[in-house]
Amino acid sequence: MKTKLETLELKTTEKQQLINITSRVKEAVSESGIRNGMIGLFSQHTTAALMVSEFQNALLDDISGFLRRVVSDDLPYKHNSPEFSDCDRKNAASHLRSMLFNNSVVLPVSDGELVLGQFQCVILAEMDGPRERSLKVQLLGE
Amino acid sequence: MKTKLETLELKTTEKQQLINITSRVKEAVSESGIRNGMIGLFSQHTTAALMVSEFQNALLDDISGFLRRVVSDDLPYKHNSPEFSDCDRKNAASHLRSMLFNNSVVLPVSDGELVLGQFQCVILAEMDGPRERSLKVQLLGE
Amino acid sequence: MKTKLETLELKTTEKQQLINITSRVKEAVSESGIRNGMIGLFSQHTTAALMVSEFQNALLDDISGFLRRVVSDDLPYKHNSPEFSDCDRKNAASHLRSMLFNNSVVLPVSDGELVLGQFQCVILAEMDGPRERSLKVQLLGE
Repeated sequence: MKTKLETLELKTTEKQQLINITSRVKEAVSESGIRNGMIGLFSQHTTAALMVSEFQNALLDDISGFLRRVVSDDLPYKHNSPEFSDCDRKNAASHLRSMLFNNSVVLPVSDGELVLGQFQCVILAEMDGPRERSLKVQLLGE
Repeated sequence: MKTKLETLELKTTEKQQLINITSRVKEAVSESGIRNGMIGLFSQHTTAALMVSEFQNALLDDISGFLRRVVSDDLPYKHNSPEFSDCDRKNAASHLRSMLFNNSVVLPVSDGELVLGQFQCVILAEMDGPRERSLKVQLLGE
Repeated sequence: MKTKLETLELKTTEKQQLINITSRVKEAVSESGIRNGMIGLFSQHTTAALMVSEFQNALLDDISGFLRRVVSDDLPYKHNSPEFSDCDRKNAASHLRSMLFNNSVVLPVSDGELVLGQFQCVILAEMDGPRERSLKVQLLGE
């Protein structure tokens, strides 16, 4: 049983963007040499998160619509007020939307392959881009 | 330290259904022979997810009400439109509700027992049934 | 590769409270002697949960506002009705808010240190305090 920690760098290009990173996660699995165990993906950020979902354009638009309805852009957030916060970005909504996803995703690895259901993809949820984002990738197994 | 991956099959019977699977998870732990470590449960689906919560009828009704309020059934979702999607099920709301839960649940195993708090149960959240559902169950420990 | 399970006890002091427990998680990592692997934190409760986020006062207020908007205190929840529930606390909203966070948080450990991004903190989300809360802390690594 061994453990291995790597970093996966991504450049996002839009303010809010759902990015399919499944192929990069599969690459990390095959490069690790680990045949059976688990992979953990960890966002190092507080306005970019992870999820496992279907990656289909129409559904991605529905997810964006949902995020806008549930977390409004226009409320008088304290985090966006110079009186209460010295954050240079007015990104309270980005933080709140990011919280609706996960900071991490854990998935099984079997016979050297990432185990995902037929329609499942690993998705980075950029909620405050464009930015350079960094994920920690941990393999644990044998 | 060893790792073991199994599959747990379930048949759901309703469109939206919260199913207590705690006893099946406990069975998987005792059958694995692993005494100390972790168990990971992984939904292989994009409209069925997992959570750990109290399993009490009144609360389950409140959870269903919450899901209906937060994710309306009646919006003009793109995923439900033949113009934008070739999905045969009009299940955008099921995807969005499923996202509010988790794709996976990880729990500790100690002395051969699943470690859960007094009121905690492992729950499968079926958001687009009835269907046959499949969970991957991974044990990692010694 | 070894595994170690401990308990972390906390006293919360308010009905709804976000508590920065990062330093206690770091302590658990250094006391464990594990240099490389993963740490899992597991809430043993159904009205207190965990998340990884920025810990800044203005943002914490925005998170509280979000929770109040998304999960109203005043709906006729069944879990709060003596007709349907024998729970002595009228805490349906606490359960629903807790569900929006995670039951567990998993993070990598590298060279004996907890791996977190620059602005990330581990936060206990008390949704029904004040109470005594208990987290299981599992280290898995070498």
